[in-house]
Amino acid sequence: MTFSSFIPPQRTLMGPGPSDIAPQVLAALSRPTVGHLDPTFGGMMEQLKQLLQFAFQTRNECTIAISAPGSAGMEACFVNLLQPGDSVVVCINGVFGQRMRENITRCGAKAVVVEDEWGRAVTPQKLEDALKQHPEAKFVAFVHAETSTGALSDAKTLCSIAKQYNCLTIVDTVTSLGGVEVNVDGWGIDAVYSGSQKCLSCVPGLSPVSFSPAAVDVIKNRKVPVQSWFLDQSLVMTYWSGKGKRSYHHTAPVNSLYALHEALLMLYKEGLQQSWQRHLTQHQKLVAGLDELGIDFVVPESERIPQLNAVNIPQGLDDASVRRSLLDEFNLEIGAGLGPFAGKTWRIGLMGYAARNENIALCLAALKQVLSN
Amino acid sequence: MTFSSFIPPQRTLMGPGPSDIAPQVLAALSRPTVGHLDPTFGGMMEQLKQLLQFAFQTRNECTIAISAPGSAGMEACFVNLLQPGDSVVVCINGVFGQRMRENITRCGAKAVVVEDEWGRAVTPQKLEDALKQHPEAKFVAFVHAETSTGALSDAKTLCSIAKQYNCLTIVDTVTSLGGVEVNVDGWGIDAVYSGSQKCLSCVPGLSPVSFSPAAVDVIKNRKVPVQSWFLDQSLVMTYWSGKGKRSYHHTAPVNSLYALHEALLMLYKEGLQQSWQRHLTQHQKLVAGLDELGIDFVVPESERIPQLNAVNIPQGLDDASVRRSLLDEFNLEIGAGLGPFAGKTWRIGLMGYAARNENIALCLAALKQVLSN
Repeated sequence: MTFSSFIPPQRTLMGPGPSDIAPQVLAALSRPTVGHLDPTFGGMMEQLKQLLQFAFQTRNECTIAISAPGSAGMEACFVNLLQPGDSVVVCINGVFGQRMRENITRCGAKAVVVEDEWGRAVTPQKLEDALKQHPEAKFVAFVHAETSTGALSDAKTLCSIAKQYNCLTIVDTVTSLGGVEVNVDGWGIDAVYSGSQKCLSCVPGLSPVSFSPAAVDVIKNRKVPVQSWFLDQSLVMTYWSGKGKRSYHHTAPVNSLYALHEALLMLYKEGLQQSWQRHLTQHQKLVAGLDELGIDFVVPESERIPQLNAVNIPQGLDDASVRRSLLDEFNLEIGAGLGPFAGKTWRIGLMGYAARNENIALCLAALKQVLSN
Repeated sequence: MTFSSFIPPQRTLMGPGPSDIAPQVLAALSRPTVGHLDPTFGGMMEQLKQLLQFAFQTRNECTIAISAPGSAGMEACFVNLLQPGDSVVVCINGVFGQRMRENITRCGAKAVVVEDEWGRAVTPQKLEDALKQHPEAKFVAFVHAETSTGALSDAKTLCSIAKQYNCLTIVDTVTSLGGVEVNVDGWGIDAVYSGSQKCLSCVPGLSPVSFSPAAVDVIKNRKVPVQSWFLDQSLVMTYWSGKGKRSYHHTAPVNSLYALHEALLMLYKEGLQQSWQRHLTQHQKLVAGLDELGIDFVVPESERIPQLNAVNIPQGLDDASVRRSLLDEFNLEIGAGLGPFAGKTWRIGLMGYAARNENIALCLAALKQVLSN
């Protein structure tokens, strides 16, 4: 075999993530690597923590970026909080709710499943019914923005119900953070994880997480060690705490953290409200354009994630060949359906830096041309 | 708080990792992000697998990069192979052998510990004695190059003993891969992990791993699921297999994988033997220079890792202030001691791109000047 340097094409990324990345974030990524215990890097990490607190709207001290993708962030939340035998009510309305259940059972805990139709939000009443029937439940877990279906659930209401039943909440904000309101402290989220490659428009590979003081108490009072050494927050925090000497746990992904810092700085400069508004406005433009093409949405209007548009593939079209044409002829990536939605839906992302006029114009023009072929 | 872009200083990285990174690797890192299911990215991943097979000297089909640092690679080996109740003989002569034991116990398995002095290689006879006394042992685990102490163990002999007792072998090659001989197939290593940021001179955050067919059999015939969903190789391989359609497991760290591909390409162009020879030659130059400064080594000559030089801090010197002067006055990072070696030793890395004449010249000149202050 002949090996050669990989020169990737310049794509426009409008799938479910990774999303388009701003040039300044890629520039930050390739700045000179310093040691993970370098004092200058420690200063950067302190800023990064505060920027994450800003993005999550939290004062949680334990707010960091896990050195691995969102799936590891999800796992970090479950393995740190759950102990064998614990009961967790988990709301499932797509792939990522299912993944939460997988995590629960692999922790030796019991999953009480609340199911909703794919493409719909979680029904608060179903959660309340489950909690009434399961007073032993200690945690409630759900996905805020189901990336697999485009459905946005009412995280504030779901958390409020969980609190009424004295449960801690574990919330997936992988696709929501930065794109729609996420209010960790205001809503009472106890453990939250996100991904770097969605509305934060950073490279994939990092997972912002935050644990409330109540969650930290649970971690501190565990009777059995966290099953993952790598994700054990009681150890990871000796590196991230910043109070006094940082001690080595694992080697931090230095350059990726530069990029996340820069991406969060962009969000900070724009402002949270402004970013949510931009995602909504661009979503509305996309909706209008798709409507003209006769393409309709999977999710009812009131339950849609603005930045992740799940649409029905028009009848008679071949999913894969349309997506391939968009890629080959326009360097445009849109996402396929997942699970039962495979072959039936597309997922058009408008996340972070991708939520721009030029992207929507390209997407609509390219779709129009490919669909008319 | 005022936030601003982080512009890191240009350091020379001669600690225990991350090591200096070649400009072409940083350039590859910041190439435009493509989707993790992009067909062009799939082609890159196929090359990456083959380059990893080259570096590990293996034909193992299951040879990939874990989307997280070396500690997660370690965990991937243990959680996939071990089941509760399994017995594992683990050789401990430093921090990373201890970390292996942590992983073993967190899998619910039993660790039979073979201990050697820190700063010395693992004693093969002790391993053999332990295996005689523990016929129930299924695995032997050890660290090839103990990054915490600078001691290189005889991996070939240790694996050969393990095979005589029908044990599968789990070997840490985080600091050895690319710097000294690692022969996965030739030595009979069944599960091996490394790190991107040592002799491969790539950014930190990825962990190359490889599993032998015998190890894959163990994974396929597990009675209980792998406790980590993120690291479950039976799922991860549906993405990496490349045979037919790649299916989504987690979002791969696209840009970091570009960088690892480029770093491995550099190793491939140089050649394995040539790289090992370069590390040895540069080590000898460093030894001669340190000798002139009156600085001696922790590890006996025949057991040293050429690329990770653990030296005794000359009496009367303050560890932290010397390292701080090197950093502040020369932008030079060398490593502190770990665990019982903290404050007593320095670790001078000559890994990958750092194993160059100019680095050794700088290190010796800077040390001479700082020590004479």
